[in-house]
Amino acid sequence: MKITRDLYQGSLTLLTDFYQFTMAYGYWKSGKAEQEVVFSLFFRKHPFQSGFTVAAGLDYVIDYCRNFSFQEKDLDYLAEMKNSNGGLTFDPAFIDYLRQMQFSCDIDAVEEGEVVFPNMPLVRVKGPLIQCQLLETALLNIINFQTLIATKAARIVLAAKGDPVLEFGLRRAQGIDGALAASRASYIGGCTSTSNVMAGKLFGIPVSGTHAHSWIMSFDNELEAFEAYAAAFPETTVLLVDTYDTITGVKNAIKVARKLRDSGNELKGIRIDSGDLAYFSNKAREMLDQAGFPEVKIIASNDLDEHIITSLQLQEASIDIWGVGTKLVTAYDQPALGAVYKMSALKDAYGNWEPKIKLSQQSIKINVPGFHNVKRFFLQGKAIGDMIYLEGTDQKEQVTIIDPLDPTRRKRIDTLQSEEQTLLVPIFRSGQKVYARPSLNGMRQRTLDRLKQFDKTHKRLTNPHIYPVGLEESLYELRTNLVLKNKPVDHLD
Amino acid sequence: MKITRDLYQGSLTLLTDFYQFTMAYGYWKSGKAEQEVVFSLFFRKHPFQSGFTVAAGLDYVIDYCRNFSFQEKDLDYLAEMKNSNGGLTFDPAFIDYLRQMQFSCDIDAVEEGEVVFPNMPLVRVKGPLIQCQLLETALLNIINFQTLIATKAARIVLAAKGDPVLEFGLRRAQGIDGALAASRASYIGGCTSTSNVMAGKLFGIPVSGTHAHSWIMSFDNELEAFEAYAAAFPETTVLLVDTYDTITGVKNAIKVARKLRDSGNELKGIRIDSGDLAYFSNKAREMLDQAGFPEVKIIASNDLDEHIITSLQLQEASIDIWGVGTKLVTAYDQPALGAVYKMSALKDAYGNWEPKIKLSQQSIKINVPGFHNVKRFFLQGKAIGDMIYLEGTDQKEQVTIIDPLDPTRRKRIDTLQSEEQTLLVPIFRSGQKVYARPSLNGMRQRTLDRLKQFDKTHKRLTNPHIYPVGLEESLYELRTNLVLKNKPVDHLD
Repeated sequence: MKITRDLYQGSLTLLTDFYQFTMAYGYWKSGKAEQEVVFSLFFRKHPFQSGFTVAAGLDYVIDYCRNFSFQEKDLDYLAEMKNSNGGLTFDPAFIDYLRQMQFSCDIDAVEEGEVVFPNMPLVRVKGPLIQCQLLETALLNIINFQTLIATKAARIVLAAKGDPVLEFGLRRAQGIDGALAASRASYIGGCTSTSNVMAGKLFGIPVSGTHAHSWIMSFDNELEAFEAYAAAFPETTVLLVDTYDTITGVKNAIKVARKLRDSGNELKGIRIDSGDLAYFSNKAREMLDQAGFPEVKIIASNDLDEHIITSLQLQEASIDIWGVGTKLVTAYDQPALGAVYKMSALKDAYGNWEPKIKLSQQSIKINVPGFHNVKRFFLQGKAIGDMIYLEGTDQKEQVTIIDPLDPTRRKRIDTLQSEEQTLLVPIFRSGQKVYARPSLNGMRQRTLDRLKQFDKTHKRLTNPHIYPVGLEESLYELRTNLVLKNKPVDHLD
Repeated sequence: MKITRDLYQGSLTLLTDFYQFTMAYGYWKSGKAEQEVVFSLFFRKHPFQSGFTVAAGLDYVIDYCRNFSFQEKDLDYLAEMKNSNGGLTFDPAFIDYLRQMQFSCDIDAVEEGEVVFPNMPLVRVKGPLIQCQLLETALLNIINFQTLIATKAARIVLAAKGDPVLEFGLRRAQGIDGALAASRASYIGGCTSTSNVMAGKLFGIPVSGTHAHSWIMSFDNELEAFEAYAAAFPETTVLLVDTYDTITGVKNAIKVARKLRDSGNELKGIRIDSGDLAYFSNKAREMLDQAGFPEVKIIASNDLDEHIITSLQLQEASIDIWGVGTKLVTAYDQPALGAVYKMSALKDAYGNWEPKIKLSQQSIKINVPGFHNVKRFFLQGKAIGDMIYLEGTDQKEQVTIIDPLDPTRRKRIDTLQSEEQTLLVPIFRSGQKVYARPSLNGMRQRTLDRLKQFDKTHKRLTNPHIYPVGLEESLYELRTNLVLKNKPVDHLD
């Protein structure tokens, strides 16, 4: 099988959990397939003990939904499935039903690069039950991963305090798309460039890179290798100095810098990829400065993340540019965002939205019911709180938002004094795209701009000040009543 | 852009770090592009503090290499790249050179499902320097990830002690291929099935799944939902019992089990996805047994990994089938394997292989030089030690293998008494595939068989007994001499 060629040529409609199909079949058999319903995609906790999260992945979701249909070979696969007794899993009439299915949902979503918080909807899907259900897994896969990486990137970029951050995680990323989607999300989160040439070509991200240790090893000695590299790229030479010994490497780089200058060029930088980065960057800086090359940049890499960058900054390491790979593209310290996709309302036979709740032995797993949206309030350009509310609720002059997990945490907002932004924007209406996609640069800029709207205490990398997000009062009441109605009295079990 | 459709239609030749192209260009300009060279792909430490690692990903590598060529749109992208001064990055003659390039390497590799250890080559690539270099990043991406996940799966399957392990990580996997490749590698590692329908279709992995909480929530009450599900799948009903309250859920499941039995079927299982799994599984077992349903299986899920499964086994939880997702497909506790790809030899002008070494400020980062292979020795079917050796070395009756990081750790092996297996097998010769790919089931079986060859102490999940792997004596000498020759005296810096 030509795995890498065949994978994505078809639609991704089968990229879902099998239970979506068993449920779809059950809905179809029960006559519920077309019942209108609302699902909300949200996460329960920030990743990385962060005080904020950056939304990403919507563009992939749009692609996925636009291509949502069953190809004949997909249908063949489903039609031929057998259960453990040897019978067909699905009635052939169901396969025909899938064949005719056309994507017809309304989707509203938070735009890429927007700052988001727990429990608020990132994507809201309204449509026939069967479609909403079949979309679940792919939407979660896409949004979970890209949001995770955009957030990690934003944290690393904050730690770098204005220095460029280069992403080069491809070699340790989780699969082909784990790399491509990570490069994309890292750029949205604020990175400057990627090493991944395919991501450069597909998404228009600037690419960067110099040479590896193998370049040095293919020559008789390091100086000869440096000179050959400078001859190939006289205007953009950056030299990796730690193949054999960093100090000797810097000395050799300085020799090459002199030769370059003699021919009218300047060495652009050196890169250090091992050893104590604080010690060696300061040594190298001193040597370069003394040799008359104060403009040569020092690029550092080797398992960097926001915490190590912060530590190196505090130690006054002489690092100008940060190369980050594994820790960024795999979100090493928390490699999954646990976003979920829960039914929040179902239209009854009379056309009324019936709010829905999923209980759990764990309170944090209880969702927000109803057909809801989220609003952000600002005072003098600063975000002061987010309110999750039921669509159609009249807004009062003063609103109180209530933390669903701790109802004693409340905040009152004067809606006349403050400005507001509704976070969910229309993406699809009746299956048709109504959203104009921004450029990737536009998304990246949104991240950088939006983060400025938040107080720096919310952006602290460890133990951040918790930004207020809560339910509007009537939604809080609704949720509490639904929980109490559905919980048995002995639920402390 | 139709991201999901366009991604993999073309070749993956641009799926590489940009520095591979700057180096390729430099090699081409320096007249070294066609110089013959050997690279070795290896890792330095087992993931998860494991005592073993399971190799995977080779099939993807084969695909990648067979499709290794530049499409015109790839070449256009490279041809139009500009450096920071606005000039073209690459000479048009280099683009023509790439256009003509045909994959011509020899590749030898460890087969998928083989048990492997630090420092030994998993893939060995011999060929023109420029090709070997351009392959680096994709090979690392593929092997790093799939080997990581196959290893995690094997550990989880060991912990389950013969119980089936279902993989359902798609929704939290790292991107589309992060999910597909993970399903594949999990199966190689010994999992029983996947929830990912596309992985089922592409790779032939058995798929499994039942229903979600949303199924329950779409009905007026749980019992009605259970009954509708049983009506759709009377022969294979498995019910998720924790949407509102687990104990009530089990009671409702028993009602449905009785109805099923009345109509000649049997309830197959219940699934518990939250709360204390030991407590609730034992409660559920008791209730099911008392009601006359001792055959109903209990499936548990919720952030399981090998350690939680072991703990639940020790607590005598009544769990028959384990559903694992996030912790498996993202390799949560160590989401990247740090395999590297290092030049180990270069053919000089006289046709001799010159061994190559990469030093580092960190000793663990020093590679094994030379054109090497690896052999495993067995006594009565049990693996007793692995020897990394230079191809062409005459094997003595007694060999001593030496740990490269601690030369006082040695083991003597009587080669006349023991059986042996050479781990690298030929995959490509002069760019042509010479390897017959086994089936995925064959790879999975290899994992299960091979793990039996190792003493159980090496398979312990924590603090395993270290399996002996070392360099053959003459290779150890070669490496030591090369290090000393290249290291400055003040290298303790």
